[in-house]
Amino acid sequence: MSRIKGLDHIAVAVRDLEEALKIWQEKLGLILEKVEEVESEGIKVAHLRTPEGFTIELMTPLVSGSSLEKFLAQKGEGLHHLCFEVEDIDQWEEDLTSRGISFLPGYPKAGSRQTIIAFVHPRSMTGVLVEFAQPKGSK
Amino acid sequence: MSRIKGLDHIAVAVRDLEEALKIWQEKLGLILEKVEEVESEGIKVAHLRTPEGFTIELMTPLVSGSSLEKFLAQKGEGLHHLCFEVEDIDQWEEDLTSRGISFLPGYPKAGSRQTIIAFVHPRSMTGVLVEFAQPKGSK
Repeated sequence: MSRIKGLDHIAVAVRDLEEALKIWQEKLGLILEKVEEVESEGIKVAHLRTPEGFTIELMTPLVSGSSLEKFLAQKGEGLHHLCFEVEDIDQWEEDLTSRGISFLPGYPKAGSRQTIIAFVHPRSMTGVLVEFAQPKGSK
Repeated sequence: MSRIKGLDHIAVAVRDLEEALKIWQEKLGLILEKVEEVESEGIKVAHLRTPEGFTIELMTPLVSGSSLEKFLAQKGEGLHHLCFEVEDIDQWEEDLTSRGISFLPGYPKAGSRQTIIAFVHPRSMTGVLVEFAQPKGSK
C-alpha cells in the first residue's frame, strides 16, 4: 500500500496577486520564491515560503473561464486546496480509488514546479479540495 | 521586528469527527496523535500528523452556538484556518496591527496543545482566517 510522503503546499485563491503579495510577503514576512504562470491550469502562482521551508501558493486566474475564476466568483478569496506529495501518482490514485475516494477527471497531468498532479473531489474529503503531486523523475 | 517561526497547523471544519477520521486517518493514512476537547472554543479537535510531522486538525463543534457551528451552517465542511507559530504573541499582534492587519477581539487566549493564540480577521488576509500561536513558556 502506497502512502503520503508529506504536505507539499497550501494554496490560497486571490483576485489580485500584487495586492495579495503586499499582505503575505510584506506584512506577514513570508519569503517570495518565484512567480510562475501555469498555462495548463490558466493561473498565475506566487510561491512563498515560511522560515522553515514550507510553501504557500497564492493563485490568481490568468484566463477567463478557468475553474479558479469560478471559485472566486462563487466563494470569494480564501483557502483553496491542500497538496500532499506522493511517490507514485498512478499507484496512489489506484489505491485511493479502491478505498472509495473519487478523483477529478482530466488528471494526472503536469502541474507547477515540475510535478505530475491529480485532484480528489472535495465530496470525498470532508469538503476539502486535495491535490496530490509526484515530483517528476521521482518514480 | 518580530517574525513568524513557521507553519503550525492547518484546520478543517467537519460535521462528524468519527466519519472524518475514517477518511483522513484510515483512507489517507495520516497518523492520529490525539483527540482533545477545547472548552474555551466549544470544539472537539482530532490532531493528525503527516509522515514528516506536520499537523492537520479536524474540528467539530461541541456546543450549540459556537462560531464553528456557524461556519459549518454558512459554508459547510472544508478548510477553516491556517496557524503560524510565533515567539511572542503580544509583540506580534502589536507589529501586525501597526502594519494595518486587524485581529479578532477576545484574544490572545489559551488554545489547544498548551498555546496562547490570536486570530486575524479574514478581511485583512485575502479571505483566509489566520491564527497565530505562541507555545506556553516560549517567551
